[in-house]
Amino acid sequence: MTTTRTTTRTIDGTRIARGIRARVAARVGEIAHGGRVPGLATVLVGDDPASAVYVAAKRRAVREAGMRDIHRHLPHSVTRAEVAAAIDALAADPDVSGILLQLPLPPHLDAPALIDRIPPEKDVDGLTTASAGRLARGERGLRPCTPSGVLRILDAESVELRGARVAMVGWGELVGRPLAQLLLRRGATVTVAHEFTADLAAVTRPADIVVVATGVRGLIGPEHVTPGATVIDVGIHRTAQGLAGDVRAAELDGIAGRITPVPGAVGPMTIAMLLVNTLRAAEWGAGREAVPM
Amino acid sequence: MTTTRTTTRTIDGTRIARGIRARVAARVGEIAHGGRVPGLATVLVGDDPASAVYVAAKRRAVREAGMRDIHRHLPHSVTRAEVAAAIDALAADPDVSGILLQLPLPPHLDAPALIDRIPPEKDVDGLTTASAGRLARGERGLRPCTPSGVLRILDAESVELRGARVAMVGWGELVGRPLAQLLLRRGATVTVAHEFTADLAAVTRPADIVVVATGVRGLIGPEHVTPGATVIDVGIHRTAQGLAGDVRAAELDGIAGRITPVPGAVGPMTIAMLLVNTLRAAEWGAGREAVPM
Repeated sequence: MTTTRTTTRTIDGTRIARGIRARVAARVGEIAHGGRVPGLATVLVGDDPASAVYVAAKRRAVREAGMRDIHRHLPHSVTRAEVAAAIDALAADPDVSGILLQLPLPPHLDAPALIDRIPPEKDVDGLTTASAGRLARGERGLRPCTPSGVLRILDAESVELRGARVAMVGWGELVGRPLAQLLLRRGATVTVAHEFTADLAAVTRPADIVVVATGVRGLIGPEHVTPGATVIDVGIHRTAQGLAGDVRAAELDGIAGRITPVPGAVGPMTIAMLLVNTLRAAEWGAGREAVPM
Repeated sequence: MTTTRTTTRTIDGTRIARGIRARVAARVGEIAHGGRVPGLATVLVGDDPASAVYVAAKRRAVREAGMRDIHRHLPHSVTRAEVAAAIDALAADPDVSGILLQLPLPPHLDAPALIDRIPPEKDVDGLTTASAGRLARGERGLRPCTPSGVLRILDAESVELRGARVAMVGWGELVGRPLAQLLLRRGATVTVAHEFTADLAAVTRPADIVVVATGVRGLIGPEHVTPGATVIDVGIHRTAQGLAGDVRAAELDGIAGRITPVPGAVGPMTIAMLLVNTLRAAEWGAGREAVPM
């Protein structure tokens, strides 16, 4: 495809996340002296093993940041009204700065309606309709964690966004949709590709930055990437050989300018941004501007 | 640029709009027999001549559709609290199906906050944060009129959207932002370009459909359009030679496959979709599904 060889830099997202988490912890320490410790409430329904692992990692990070770890574990058989009541109680609790309802919920529950019970002020996942509206209108609000984490990676790597061409591959609710908007707000020229895109390589090849969040393992390879481009892999798949992403990273060595590894970049950043959002919610809740992290 | 000659079809948006308005009027007649006539309340602040012309056209269309025309004209010196009180009264009035706050507002008023006072159920312009959130999440809600009108034009012309490449030139709050999302929901591969886009022609040339809503007169010409592409011009500018758009339409004759004229396409469709939204709000308000128009 190409004869140019590029030195491919593997982005150390774990290091970037560690720096953010340290700054959050320092700020939490300052606030705690003033009286109120930010708190994150995680709500887990049922016994999905992957969800349990994710929630445990988030709770550990919350405690390590010096925040209050509040947890509600509801049985798989819980009714919609019971989940709603649990969310309402956390919404009314002044010790709770943020509420995270771990997804997916069991199918008998109405996930969108339950998500929308979280007040936007405590919506640290940024997934409510109110938060989506605030993002769409550019108003102050909590933004989804993974998209925010991707932006932070690009900023930490000094990747210029204004005027850059970005291919956003995947248009899901959690990543592609909000991230496309965030990138546009930063002045990028964004193309959104998805399952109906006829010629994916034609969309991704002109891009300076390719962000992939499709849930399709190994979708993106050298045929999709122009030499020197930055590649951000949001996918995560469990395989017999360990974790893998939506990008065939090994094949992009010598082509991509920078690439995020899976694991070790977007995942840690998502947790770091959850802490940033929880801190932000606490600061806003106290009537303060949030300190940039 | 090209040696191919295409027969360029001028899209008759006035005719498409007329058909929609006739169907709306017929349905309004059916509902009126059942008791309640849909009503649109227009709120005009100050004496901007262009705004007065737009509001008059909307009110005339409302009456022609057999709907109730409610109008509030407030002086330029009105306070924010007075505008808010007027909106609240209309929000509480069961005769008012939809509320349209004509923009722009005088600068001393906080337009975003006043727009957000309109309940989403009556937000026939689709511009509130709540409506933006519903659009972003794909929930039932009222969509902005001009973007909806553009989709209707494409549908009336049988332009396939699924898998089509669309260049959305302009990312404004009224058109580009919501329209990009609507096009993506229909399965188009969408590139959003804007003032920071470095090479606009590189973005628009691969597109099957070019939609232009920039407010820059004559921005788009033959260098931007691939032969046979559909070109939708949302721009409108008053010039000494009459109205003009964002597209140099005459230069695209023989290149574009289809093109919307200015005036005579997007403008009439915007008014038609305002009527559709008002009817829809009335039907939803009465607990009915809206009949497709």
